[in-house]
Amino acid sequence: REVLFFPSRPCCIEALLAEAAEPGAPARPCPCPLPSGDTALSRLVRRLLSARRSLDLCLFSFSCPQLARAVQLLHRRGVRVRLVTDAQFMGLHGSQIGRLRHAGIQVRHDQHSGYMHHKFAIVDRRMLITGSLNWTTQAIQSNRENVLVVEDAEYVKAFQDEFERIWEEYNPANYIFFP
Amino acid sequence: REVLFFPSRPCCIEALLAEAAEPGAPARPCPCPLPSGDTALSRLVRRLLSARRSLDLCLFSFSCPQLARAVQLLHRRGVRVRLVTDAQFMGLHGSQIGRLRHAGIQVRHDQHSGYMHHKFAIVDRRMLITGSLNWTTQAIQSNRENVLVVEDAEYVKAFQDEFERIWEEYNPANYIFFP
Repeated sequence: REVLFFPSRPCCIEALLAEAAEPGAPARPCPCPLPSGDTALSRLVRRLLSARRSLDLCLFSFSCPQLARAVQLLHRRGVRVRLVTDAQFMGLHGSQIGRLRHAGIQVRHDQHSGYMHHKFAIVDRRMLITGSLNWTTQAIQSNRENVLVVEDAEYVKAFQDEFERIWEEYNPANYIFFP
Repeated sequence: REVLFFPSRPCCIEALLAEAAEPGAPARPCPCPLPSGDTALSRLVRRLLSARRSLDLCLFSFSCPQLARAVQLLHRRGVRVRLVTDAQFMGLHGSQIGRLRHAGIQVRHDQHSGYMHHKFAIVDRRMLITGSLNWTTQAIQSNRENVLVVEDAEYVKAFQDEFERIWEEYNPANYIFFP
């Protein structure tokens, strides 16, 4: 049970990613000038990297390269990643959606004029990460934002059910290509 | 403990407002064509109208007239309403901020280029209402959105503390008018 508030100090998450990719491997110092350390961003990344079986993402906007690398790493490690996003925002400059699709991650999107405006993640069907934060560097570093980490089964189930509803509704078999 | 998902069916909340303004008064049927009934919007309004002493609002965007009427009603009823919002968004067409200020409600805003992107309300310092939902009719009626209602003291305290930090930081005494 945790609440993260943003903006987060910029920080280097290379050590976190390296440890998740190869647990126990000797740490190689990162040459970047950013401090490592405990920030809202590093805490968010740690929570995501705790996934062992599944990661369900329902994100309006996803352009933060650091979070995209964490998601790709989980995918490579065999975690089942599913991503739902907003059709209008996934094509914007800097969006990580193309890169994640290219890596083999399943992505589905809406076909509505309304926004798919959720910003939540569910780790292993047991931990809900939700709030006001879009997964963009601007939001992480410049905005006042909140993210709740919730393991209460009732909340998690409500969001998991919403995810499954959206996942089915946005099945590409239902896409209309020539309306 | 509740989770509300949007979009919400359009609905009439006149009966809810009338009952809150004058409890026990005979119901007058509303001439509008909207159905009344149980929707995500009516549930959100009910939670807000349960305020007796204080309502702290921290809202990126607030343009929904129905929610503005509920907030005004609480203010008239003597509930202490404080509102924090985003400087760039409060001037947009349809924003309810001017109307609420005009009604005598205290409003403070940021002076940053980053957004004040929170979307939460705290009722009587005991109930947290937070999620992805901006308080706009577009979001309520067209977007996929979530709102959590949380009475867990630990979460409420974290958000109340964040509200007080922002409230102090955005004190008009700190505004810079001629940078």
